[in-house]
Amino acid sequence: MSDKPAPIAIVLGSDSDLEVMVPCLEILAQLEIPYDLTVASAHRSPERAQQIAATARQRGLKIIIAAAGWAAHLPGVLAARTTLPVIGVPISSSPIGGLDALYSIVQMPPGVPVAAVGIDTARNAGILAAQILALDDPRLVERLRGLKKQMQESVEEQAAGIQKQWRERLGGSADE
Amino acid sequence: MSDKPAPIAIVLGSDSDLEVMVPCLEILAQLEIPYDLTVASAHRSPERAQQIAATARQRGLKIIIAAAGWAAHLPGVLAARTTLPVIGVPISSSPIGGLDALYSIVQMPPGVPVAAVGIDTARNAGILAAQILALDDPRLVERLRGLKKQMQESVEEQAAGIQKQWRERLGGSADE
Amino acid sequence: MSDKPAPIAIVLGSDSDLEVMVPCLEILAQLEIPYDLTVASAHRSPERAQQIAATARQRGLKIIIAAAGWAAHLPGVLAARTTLPVIGVPISSSPIGGLDALYSIVQMPPGVPVAAVGIDTARNAGILAAQILALDDPRLVERLRGLKKQMQESVEEQAAGIQKQWRERLGGSADE
Amino acid sequence: MSDKPAPIAIVLGSDSDLEVMVPCLEILAQLEIPYDLTVASAHRSPERAQQIAATARQRGLKIIIAAAGWAAHLPGVLAARTTLPVIGVPISSSPIGGLDALYSIVQMPPGVPVAAVGIDTARNAGILAAQILALDDPRLVERLRGLKKQMQESVEEQAAGIQKQWRERLGGSADE
Amino acid sequence: MSDKPAPIAIVLGSDSDLEVMVPCLEILAQLEIPYDLTVASAHRSPERAQQIAATARQRGLKIIIAAAGWAAHLPGVLAARTTLPVIGVPISSSPIGGLDALYSIVQMPPGVPVAAVGIDTARNAGILAAQILALDDPRLVERLRGLKKQMQESVEEQAAGIQKQWRERLGGSADE
Amino acid sequence: MSDKPAPIAIVLGSDSDLEVMVPCLEILAQLEIPYDLTVASAHRSPERAQQIAATARQRGLKIIIAAAGWAAHLPGVLAARTTLPVIGVPISSSPIGGLDALYSIVQMPPGVPVAAVGIDTARNAGILAAQILALDDPRLVERLRGLKKQMQESVEEQAAGIQKQWRERLGGSADE
Amino acid sequence: MSDKPAPIAIVLGSDSDLEVMVPCLEILAQLEIPYDLTVASAHRSPERAQQIAATARQRGLKIIIAAAGWAAHLPGVLAARTTLPVIGVPISSSPIGGLDALYSIVQMPPGVPVAAVGIDTARNAGILAAQILALDDPRLVERLRGLKKQMQESVEEQAAGIQKQWRERLGGSADE
Amino acid sequence: MSDKPAPIAIVLGSDSDLEVMVPCLEILAQLEIPYDLTVASAHRSPERAQQIAATARQRGLKIIIAAAGWAAHLPGVLAARTTLPVIGVPISSSPIGGLDALYSIVQMPPGVPVAAVGIDTARNAGILAAQILALDDPRLVERLRGLKKQMQESVEEQAAGIQKQWRERLGGSADE
Repeated sequence: MSDKPAPIAIVLGSDSDLEVMVPCLEILAQLEIPYDLTVASAHRSPERAQQIAATARQRGLKIIIAAAGWAAHLPGVLAARTTLPVIGVPISSSPIGGLDALYSIVQMPPGVPVAAVGIDTARNAGILAAQILALDDPRLVERLRGLKKQMQESVEEQAAGIQKQWRERLGGSADE
Repeated sequence: MSDKPAPIAIVLGSDSDLEVMVPCLEILAQLEIPYDLTVASAHRSPERAQQIAATARQRGLKIIIAAAGWAAHLPGVLAARTTLPVIGVPISSSPIGGLDALYSIVQMPPGVPVAAVGIDTARNAGILAAQILALDDPRLVERLRGLKKQMQESVEEQAAGIQKQWRERLGGSADE
Repeated sequence: MSDKPAPIAIVLGSDSDLEVMVPCLEILAQLEIPYDLTVASAHRSPERAQQIAATARQRGLKIIIAAAGWAAHLPGVLAARTTLPVIGVPISSSPIGGLDALYSIVQMPPGVPVAAVGIDTARNAGILAAQILALDDPRLVERLRGLKKQMQESVEEQAAGIQKQWRERLGGSADE
Repeated sequence: MSDKPAPIAIVLGSDSDLEVMVPCLEILAQLEIPYDLTVASAHRSPERAQQIAATARQRGLKIIIAAAGWAAHLPGVLAARTTLPVIGVPISSSPIGGLDALYSIVQMPPGVPVAAVGIDTARNAGILAAQILALDDPRLVERLRGLKKQMQESVEEQAAGIQKQWRERLGGSADE
Repeated sequence: MSDKPAPIAIVLGSDSDLEVMVPCLEILAQLEIPYDLTVASAHRSPERAQQIAATARQRGLKIIIAAAGWAAHLPGVLAARTTLPVIGVPISSSPIGGLDALYSIVQMPPGVPVAAVGIDTARNAGILAAQILALDDPRLVERLRGLKKQMQESVEEQAAGIQKQWRERLGGSADE
Repeated sequence: MSDKPAPIAIVLGSDSDLEVMVPCLEILAQLEIPYDLTVASAHRSPERAQQIAATARQRGLKIIIAAAGWAAHLPGVLAARTTLPVIGVPISSSPIGGLDALYSIVQMPPGVPVAAVGIDTARNAGILAAQILALDDPRLVERLRGLKKQMQESVEEQAAGIQKQWRERLGGSADE
Repeated sequence: MSDKPAPIAIVLGSDSDLEVMVPCLEILAQLEIPYDLTVASAHRSPERAQQIAATARQRGLKIIIAAAGWAAHLPGVLAARTTLPVIGVPISSSPIGGLDALYSIVQMPPGVPVAAVGIDTARNAGILAAQILALDDPRLVERLRGLKKQMQESVEEQAAGIQKQWRERLGGSADE
Repeated sequence: MSDKPAPIAIVLGSDSDLEVMVPCLEILAQLEIPYDLTVASAHRSPERAQQIAATARQRGLKIIIAAAGWAAHLPGVLAARTTLPVIGVPISSSPIGGLDALYSIVQMPPGVPVAAVGIDTARNAGILAAQILALDDPRLVERLRGLKKQMQESVEEQAAGIQKQWRERLGGSADE
């Protein structure tokens, strides 16, 4: 990878969120997009969170991906301090299945948006970031098209395999 | 089974939904209704999904059963491309117990209906499809009546067994 | 209209549900499908509800559409007594926006399905019923295709009109 | 126990609900209240369910306790056919934690009440039934008072034990 | 009315709940059941609430009906102090449609039941109370049967009227 | 009022929240507790919000009351920057009745608490603040006791008035 | 404005969504970002929706903003057909306050992201789009910074005005 | 520890809540704040609960922390009997993830506040209590500042460790 600064910062509210975020890291690696990975809490280390956002553009960052559970203020708090796009990933770590994190991330009042993806869908945060970066990176467009094609082929393989799988597994009635 | 095309297509949003859909496949087999089983994703293979729906009637299909989790767009996307009835099965694969899939499937805006059954209730999708096909198939009406009778007898057996079960298991106070 | 019995019975849990169900009646009229319209409550007139369902097939009915609010047991109670398909319309008459009616209608346990449409979406109940009846009525297929084309054209007209509407209404910046 | 008919019928929507209902059976045994235990499904055996309710008063029953999960119509369907009080116990067997059963049981529209207790709180259904029967049974009032006293003493024992428990378990700082 | 004490106490958490509770008062009047009507708050007048419950049985009361909104503790707090049956009516006065009151009333932990009816369904609280009192009052059984018959006839009248209503109002296609 | 700095700062996320917060201002006035009233948004003016919290203790403040709607991060963002107690008031300004604000305020992850009161219950925020200040202010304890007594008397007056109110308004059957 | 194609397409599921989307159109105009405004329904005009997405990149578009209510499939259906970023705006037009639209938009399964903003928060969709476009448009960065400054100043003005407003309106006790 | 009475009483609705409350006990120990730990149920031992609250101030208590699950009336019932601040901890012991306890605790009607913390967040209850006590205890302010610093340093350590953790664990692409 080049000396250019990574265009993406991934900020976790806690290092216990790493496990859920692995698919985000993996898809960025697959799409050959460098990223910084760090931890900052909107509540336990507010100064640190604010600094990450406030200095993001001058450090060459283009997108911030922030993941948090419970009253997940982190994405909104970062978005308050930067004009870069902030992608929020609600984590389902609370007893109510992540609805608290989802509402805290997506229901931002008018003026300061966060781009929310689904609960625990770290992979989608990575792809969304890539789609944004691809706006001026034709090679990345090609990789994203490759990814779409790959998904499509994987569905076709599943389709091809499922009748066989079903027949073997259950001796089912399908299409004899 | 005859050469006639299967009247039912079962479309899974992912082959990981097969497990939940087994009771649908089983009840169709029990009712002697042939079906096609395939995989198509509204998002990962939209062209494939659209083709399945757009060509369904001319391929002799009568009903599409579509199962999906999360933002389960598949049943609605299929319904947009066909005038055949589409039955949607919400799958509880997300962290919020399938409420997302339920709302995405049932809350179709006016004009393009999906017939929703309960979360993960694959068996009901199969029976509902059979009830529709039975409208011009008297033998199938008989099989559905048989099924209803079977359920009724099973309840009666449970009723007969439960006091015994309770007395044995706990030495309970019932009806001595 | 012919002497043939109406193929559809619309059953309201209360005559106060008529207003919400008007779009169902209208679309059936537009599609030239006769229907019976009546009132029966699963709780206030259970015998009547049961009779409607138990005699439905022999009276020549093919589909029952049942609308109810609150703990909307009506569709399920009818479905328990017939092997005809039952379409349920949850009505939003309670203080919790019809979620109670939706869950009561759609979450039928395995064995006795109800085909649920969205909260208050009476029009979709009518179209779904028509899609089922069209399975052996080629003229109805044509009418349903006409309806789909009509919706499509209406969207295109909206698309054509909206930039004009916006420019006139707000002097908006669109496409100058 | 005497020859008098049992005053309480416990009706389960399925024998798989027995496990959750055990605390109801136990408290009735403890309070020396005989009961009948049976299975009837509002959907799979509607005739049976209706008969249980319609004949309940003449068989000498005073209260019906009905337990069901999912779209739990059973208590409401029984209440439609009797003027005896019906107590409903929502069971959390669906993927949405029993909210469907709770709403289906408690949100009965005006005219036909069901007395709902909390999700899976079978013990409370038994105590509520006992409180009703105690209205003309002074000995049962005494037993219920005993139960209340027992609960109170149990709390006091817990209170006495908890500081000890905490000190032993964690070497906690409490009030040394 | 006789000198006998009223068998029912209706306790409102606030006099602003009176409006919602009117159908309860009306049905009790129709069924000729005397009642006391009062106000007591679990939080603003806890001593008063406790006294009402603690002295209820000795004052000749048989049932307490308690209505409250928000974190509706009143029914549970009364139930804690008496072995009489307590019926709780959740009021939809909060911004979340009464779900808070419903959960606070119905989700009583094991040991101290409240008989919950639906949100704002005051009439059902009255009928449930009457069903309980009818257990040793044959005349009240007759009145309850009359009420059930009345509801049934009212549904039949609605059924008779609705096709006419629909034809007049909309020139609908029904049954010409 | 003395020269002492006000012990309470009330921070609104927007001046449109003033209306809902009036009962908080009124109860503080009644309890003779001075307060500062200001506006700061966690997202639109993060620096301002942070300054208010970071300097609060040295300015002599003892408690911060923060009110916000939607993804109501304000109370949590303030709590991140101070060790003073922060009371959060969720405002029901969004289309989901304030559940978003409630979860965003109350579901703070371990380490940085916010003391949440109910949706729109501004008055309770004021009383809670007063209870805290009263811990070393015996005169305020007296005023709070007076308030409790006042509430109790008001309930008693409501109780006294309600039978009269009911009799006059509806000619009801109560206690004649 | 130049001849360059507009970088943003705003797609409404119905022209009835225009009213809610006005703040999106206004902020884009304020930020001098041209846009196309059109209507396409995922269900009533699926071919049209698909064409908009499939041809978007070659037509020079960079971002699609899609607004829809109910089972709001539109943003996801568009995202399935393009590698451009798609921003989804859930509209609160259904009886359950837009929760159906929110879940349908944000809970996209892994592979095909939609960037969701809050229910009805059209303005945030516009700002988020601008933040993305600003990644290679320094003048737009300046305008976004201006917007942030403007919001901050507006909060400061509100803060300056609110004590005055409160004192005038209620003769409140603040800071005398 | 001194002879002074403990300033905090921790009241559990049941000794089964101890496990969830351990982090509250631990943080109080770490902050060197003595506490009493006891059990009292609003429903099973109402007299005991009332006594604890009614005598709290004269026994030298300053704050009550009450934890309960289901229809968690305990905090509100205590708050009704004291003018001391009451902190409520909703416990997620019911099948609906603690939403019942949360609403029962936080949605207190105007007049009697409870300070709610998040579901199962016992640690926050302890910190909030400490923040209140610190208002006239400068040494406790220092300890709370130390705690905040500790959290901040822990986040910084997590940040330092996470790239290493990620690289080792998955051979990830981060920052090579």
